[in-house]
Amino acid sequence: MHNDTIVALATPSGSGAIAVIRLSGKLAIEIASKAFRSVSNKNLNEQATHTIHLGHIIDGEKTLDEVLVSVFKNPNSYTGEDVVEVSCHGSAYIQQEIIQLFLRLGCRMATAGEFTLRAFLNGKLDLSQAEAVADLISSDNAASHQIAMQQMRGGFSSEIAKLREELLNFASLIELELDFAEEDVEFADRTQFKELISRIIFVLKRLIDSFAVGNVIKNGIPVAIVGEPNVGKSTLLNALLNEDRAIVSEIAGTTRDTIEDEISIGGIGFRFIDTAGIRDTQDIVESIGIKKTFEKIEQSQVTIYLFDALTQINNLESVRIEIEKIRNKYSQKPLLVIANKIDQLEDGQLANINTTIPDVLLLSAKTGFGVEQLTNSLLKLINTGALRNNETIVTNTRHYDALLKAFEEINKVQHGLETGLSGDLLAIDIRQALYHFGEITGEITNDDLLGNIFANFCIGK
Amino acid sequence: MHNDTIVALATPSGSGAIAVIRLSGKLAIEIASKAFRSVSNKNLNEQATHTIHLGHIIDGEKTLDEVLVSVFKNPNSYTGEDVVEVSCHGSAYIQQEIIQLFLRLGCRMATAGEFTLRAFLNGKLDLSQAEAVADLISSDNAASHQIAMQQMRGGFSSEIAKLREELLNFASLIELELDFAEEDVEFADRTQFKELISRIIFVLKRLIDSFAVGNVIKNGIPVAIVGEPNVGKSTLLNALLNEDRAIVSEIAGTTRDTIEDEISIGGIGFRFIDTAGIRDTQDIVESIGIKKTFEKIEQSQVTIYLFDALTQINNLESVRIEIEKIRNKYSQKPLLVIANKIDQLEDGQLANINTTIPDVLLLSAKTGFGVEQLTNSLLKLINTGALRNNETIVTNTRHYDALLKAFEEINKVQHGLETGLSGDLLAIDIRQALYHFGEITGEITNDDLLGNIFANFCIGK
Repeated sequence: MHNDTIVALATPSGSGAIAVIRLSGKLAIEIASKAFRSVSNKNLNEQATHTIHLGHIIDGEKTLDEVLVSVFKNPNSYTGEDVVEVSCHGSAYIQQEIIQLFLRLGCRMATAGEFTLRAFLNGKLDLSQAEAVADLISSDNAASHQIAMQQMRGGFSSEIAKLREELLNFASLIELELDFAEEDVEFADRTQFKELISRIIFVLKRLIDSFAVGNVIKNGIPVAIVGEPNVGKSTLLNALLNEDRAIVSEIAGTTRDTIEDEISIGGIGFRFIDTAGIRDTQDIVESIGIKKTFEKIEQSQVTIYLFDALTQINNLESVRIEIEKIRNKYSQKPLLVIANKIDQLEDGQLANINTTIPDVLLLSAKTGFGVEQLTNSLLKLINTGALRNNETIVTNTRHYDALLKAFEEINKVQHGLETGLSGDLLAIDIRQALYHFGEITGEITNDDLLGNIFANFCIGK
Repeated sequence: MHNDTIVALATPSGSGAIAVIRLSGKLAIEIASKAFRSVSNKNLNEQATHTIHLGHIIDGEKTLDEVLVSVFKNPNSYTGEDVVEVSCHGSAYIQQEIIQLFLRLGCRMATAGEFTLRAFLNGKLDLSQAEAVADLISSDNAASHQIAMQQMRGGFSSEIAKLREELLNFASLIELELDFAEEDVEFADRTQFKELISRIIFVLKRLIDSFAVGNVIKNGIPVAIVGEPNVGKSTLLNALLNEDRAIVSEIAGTTRDTIEDEISIGGIGFRFIDTAGIRDTQDIVESIGIKKTFEKIEQSQVTIYLFDALTQINNLESVRIEIEKIRNKYSQKPLLVIANKIDQLEDGQLANINTTIPDVLLLSAKTGFGVEQLTNSLLKLINTGALRNNETIVTNTRHYDALLKAFEEINKVQHGLETGLSGDLLAIDIRQALYHFGEITGEITNDDLLGNIFANFCIGK
């Protein structure tokens, strides 16, 4: 199956200065050389690995483009196979014509993630590293980038490998005892082993706990903003955005005109979800709105209650009651209360707000006053200790599931050790834990699993 | 000004498997080497041109990405300067971070087209070739691609250079005569020169005439489709699209849900513009619609009148009158009349249509009957002879203007020759014509002109 040569566009589709078309497989160089005419009459088949060659892509009589062709020889390539990258002009027409030409010359269109799948099958990456490639490509802030990068460079794999090695050692001693069952010997010192298992449980627990942080970092932290129209939600988000200098948006030329959007604060993604207020009302339409607000608060991890301090200055008691309702209903959920537009108030009025509304944050989205305090409050809600210390953080649900299963098996082992379970039964639980570790790094795998993982990749990777 | 080192993203913005960041300038390799740590401890400064190196982009303590770095040494690069291309993972975050890092290390953000501008200034391309790079990137069909490719490879430049050389030869002989004015000699055989000027006029005329074709090929041929809703406009466009196998659309995953769109037929782009019918009406709103229809017909080069033969079968006379009105109003403009949905009619009804409506094309967008005849009719409206014979076709308004001016001067020369104008006056007109040729290839240029040309490029090219 993996003997054929695949081709795909590796750069984003659309128009740009250049585009890169990638071939990988046994015939990659041979096929490319059929379409390529070097300006200096070089034969691609005879070129050294990691070299670049100027020439033209020729389709019969027709010159499709002037290109640079990069040659990578197995095993020194991304996939571990022979790889050719054609850097052509970035017109959709040219990209299409060149890919079609390679298909006619014997390539097959690559499926999603197939280049990385081949890298995994050829031992260039383990499975968790391969998964990190997709995470890296979709990372859009410093935190998710850091975690994906660490995982791709093998940080997660090596942590798992260490646990696995210690367990294997244990397992083999236990299994050795079974061979000498008649003689009732103990090769595995039970006290030492209890210690080892405790240590493994400690590490597993840390990894499992890290998923709570990892998952929100990967997917963005959902924050519900409760606030009526015109209280300054968009201005606030723009102020938060400026804190982080939204260079990505500037480059891409995007405009931010919805407040239901993800923005990066201190390198961490927050997804803001707009909601209306929750004033008591007899109106049916409005009570539907209130129900929706509660639903959105439930989906979120943090709630921001934002009110217009200027228009509500003589109405603070009803604001307080509304806040109290949310606080009572969601006592487990962090709630940040913000009085906006305070630049337009006098000192006495500000004091009044502070007295009436407990834990209120005075802010002016317009002048930027209070914005830094808000970002600090938001970041404090995320436990970024692991991130700062560059510890391994689990972000992948598949890994999390495997770790939970390994944890369960290891707990069985611990219980077995405490109750003096026989070695043969202990060994079964240990082997089961080892199996789940193997699932993460890909030592244990199957086609369905691989299919699921790589289907989420983009074509060309 | 062009001593600094520039950086830009060279691939389309957005997420993809990989992205390419390009540096060019004296310090390109030095700056890149500050950010790059090779996996095999290689020093970028010591690497041969056209080689590729695996390693990491490092920002202080932080690893930004695992990348491939390509090194090109002047003058063997696109710009003629030292060039480094960093092939990184295609996340917008990573692209941004790496570009920011290079800016901090001493690069400047490239302006639009600045890489190609430098290639021009360093003599790697002439001006018309540089302009062809932008045309090539925006080419989205076979015809515009062919013309841009020919121009980029120097076809147009060499045609202009030939004319220029012949004229220069002429000019120097005439000017030589001026040095011997006292002696009244004629180095330039007037009969031969009249012949030469006739030949130049012939070539210039062909080039100028080619602009009519070149311009529509570059910009797409505007076609107004006059037809009420539900007569089958979208189905017809999809049928035309299938004729050409819209592979670009398939790759990009676009859906075609507006009929105001460009599609490629026989390698040539047609821009279809939707209009309503032009039935007589007392209704004010509807007469505004009729006015708009006429406006759109005026903007177009071809008009297609499409009607539903099934619903109009007992109403053919009013259809005929409507067609007659358009034909009378725009007698100079090609009009294609199409009766759609003929698969649902009987032979007698078809005969009736043929008799009532002159030059009608019977078609079924659903079954595809008649579609090939329509594409042939559309293609016949474009004079593709020059395209087939791979002749130089002018597509650029700037070139067209310069050619017109040169043409005017050459005509003056011709007239001067016929009326026995003195050599010094002839020489002035010839020099003026040479000036306009020089404008095309960039021998005569200025900053404003260059600014205008390269401002239309994308950044990164």
